[in-house]
Amino acid sequence: MEHIGEQTIKFKNPPTILETSSIVGPKEAQGPMAKYFDQCIEDEFWGEKSWEKAESKFVKETVSTLISKSGISATDIEYCFAGDLLNQCISSSFGLRELNIPFFGVFGACSTFVESMCLGSVFVGSGAAKNVLCATSSHFCSAEKQFRFPLELGNQRPPTSQWTVTGSGAAILSASGEGPYITHITPGKIVDMGIKDANNMGAAMAPAALATLVTHFRDTGRKPSYYDAIITGDLGHIGKEILIELAETKGYNIKSNYNDCGVLMFDKETQDTHSGGSGCGCIGTIFSGYFFNQLKSRKMKRILLIATGALMNSTSTQQGESIPGIAHAISIEV
Amino acid sequence: MEHIGEQTIKFKNPPTILETSSIVGPKEAQGPMAKYFDQCIEDEFWGEKSWEKAESKFVKETVSTLISKSGISATDIEYCFAGDLLNQCISSSFGLRELNIPFFGVFGACSTFVESMCLGSVFVGSGAAKNVLCATSSHFCSAEKQFRFPLELGNQRPPTSQWTVTGSGAAILSASGEGPYITHITPGKIVDMGIKDANNMGAAMAPAALATLVTHFRDTGRKPSYYDAIITGDLGHIGKEILIELAETKGYNIKSNYNDCGVLMFDKETQDTHSGGSGCGCIGTIFSGYFFNQLKSRKMKRILLIATGALMNSTSTQQGESIPGIAHAISIEV
Repeated sequence: MEHIGEQTIKFKNPPTILETSSIVGPKEAQGPMAKYFDQCIEDEFWGEKSWEKAESKFVKETVSTLISKSGISATDIEYCFAGDLLNQCISSSFGLRELNIPFFGVFGACSTFVESMCLGSVFVGSGAAKNVLCATSSHFCSAEKQFRFPLELGNQRPPTSQWTVTGSGAAILSASGEGPYITHITPGKIVDMGIKDANNMGAAMAPAALATLVTHFRDTGRKPSYYDAIITGDLGHIGKEILIELAETKGYNIKSNYNDCGVLMFDKETQDTHSGGSGCGCIGTIFSGYFFNQLKSRKMKRILLIATGALMNSTSTQQGESIPGIAHAISIEV
Repeated sequence: MEHIGEQTIKFKNPPTILETSSIVGPKEAQGPMAKYFDQCIEDEFWGEKSWEKAESKFVKETVSTLISKSGISATDIEYCFAGDLLNQCISSSFGLRELNIPFFGVFGACSTFVESMCLGSVFVGSGAAKNVLCATSSHFCSAEKQFRFPLELGNQRPPTSQWTVTGSGAAILSASGEGPYITHITPGKIVDMGIKDANNMGAAMAPAALATLVTHFRDTGRKPSYYDAIITGDLGHIGKEILIELAETKGYNIKSNYNDCGVLMFDKETQDTHSGGSGCGCIGTIFSGYFFNQLKSRKMKRILLIATGALMNSTSTQQGESIPGIAHAISIEV
């Protein structure tokens, strides 16, 4: 393992992404990505008494599916890294409390999935573990209730707002395997450009995505064209456009091979999600469903996965604070 | 780096705890540990407009003190690991947003300080970083407001309740230095024994502390007498007694060299904190203030530091859920 440039780690023994799994909710089931997920659940409660319990069930079932798909035993997984958007990350702790694997709670808002893969890959790449599990989730109803307004209010959403994805994505990273490999990680710094509109997360997080993108290219000596796809999650339609423009001002043209999981998740014309999807579950399920599939089938050979997070809560917004953003990147190659 | 036993990592190149710092609030300043902290603040608002902003200031100033005490430059610190008790860990993200160091948000409730040191030590021990920073905080007023009742209500606290410590503790782990060294880490599993009383966290977390304690001894082949001190944080008076009893049933007598940071922080007779201190800031400040000092001066040579966390939130309690506990341990030796 080698620290290169300013903030990138290059693996001498790159961890393999052994397997992934993803389960989503009803709205995601109607979107263009539906066929790539392991399971689509029609009931947002999934038979539970609360949205919070349902979200925990998404985590639990996704991880259970993952372990069974992977062919390895849960006892061969040494550590688990997980987090979510709920206060004190309860979907992860309640969803995984019966898993019986040492647990690291992670919080990076919507960047949590890639943050957990950064941490997990260092554990595997260093020999501290042979297999680790990374998991995350979000749920539209529990997130709206907690961060915004009671759903029963039927509050109108501004055009810049994003739609929290209901779903869970999870991955096993392994010291042995035939790829796709995590070859580099570029963990991000907190970037706060003073945006205060909690209904425009794309704008708040785009500068953090830019910082990590540019640092990754500088640290590795790579250019945007090195990658088959550069993927953020989740800037949405507005944040995506901002990032393309910002990258151009830094001399990087990412127009042709860049997309965002918030843009990919829903149909803009028919699904009424305004600026697109968001939430830890968005990049978590789209990577685990779609991109992992593309890499395994060699349709894509190199992708840069950048997860962005807004490190605020409803109290900080009420107290007039701006929104600190963060973005963590991993380079995945076959 | 070597994975030994069930869930312990043994370092071939043990990271040094290069320096620590701690800043506490007014109640802690009246307790028996006061003289060991870098600074005691008399105003719970610390000149800010809200308790949340004050808590962020505790983090910011503690980290600033730490970097200046350490003698190394902030630019030589590659990664930062931090978390706290507030929803979405905002004290850490707002307190550290100007730090300009790649940031990993961590959530382990009151186990966060040792969780961050577990993660940081793997980064340093593996060569992924030369220096990392670990930080945590809690604040009595922001925690009461968020987890329990408005302070203005003057609600009566049951005898089993603990008092959230106002303060921040932080440490720099380094690849070079003369110790004290982190020689082993034993990250914990989630343990939920069905305790539902959110005013009795000590009882809820003690089984998790036991699980990690026993696993650490089994994985390393060590006995309680190997350590000058076994320290938990924060089980409080009630949880401490439970852990002593539980350990005895497993064949481990820890009576003579075991104590808890929640017990150490306040004077039981005069400070009216019932079962003692709690919160990420409790073990964070007492380790950074008192125990680091004992290790540096060679008054103690080997300690086992076990941080415990209750992975719940106020919604999960309202929905009738039990309280999952977790405990992470690190072995520190000179």
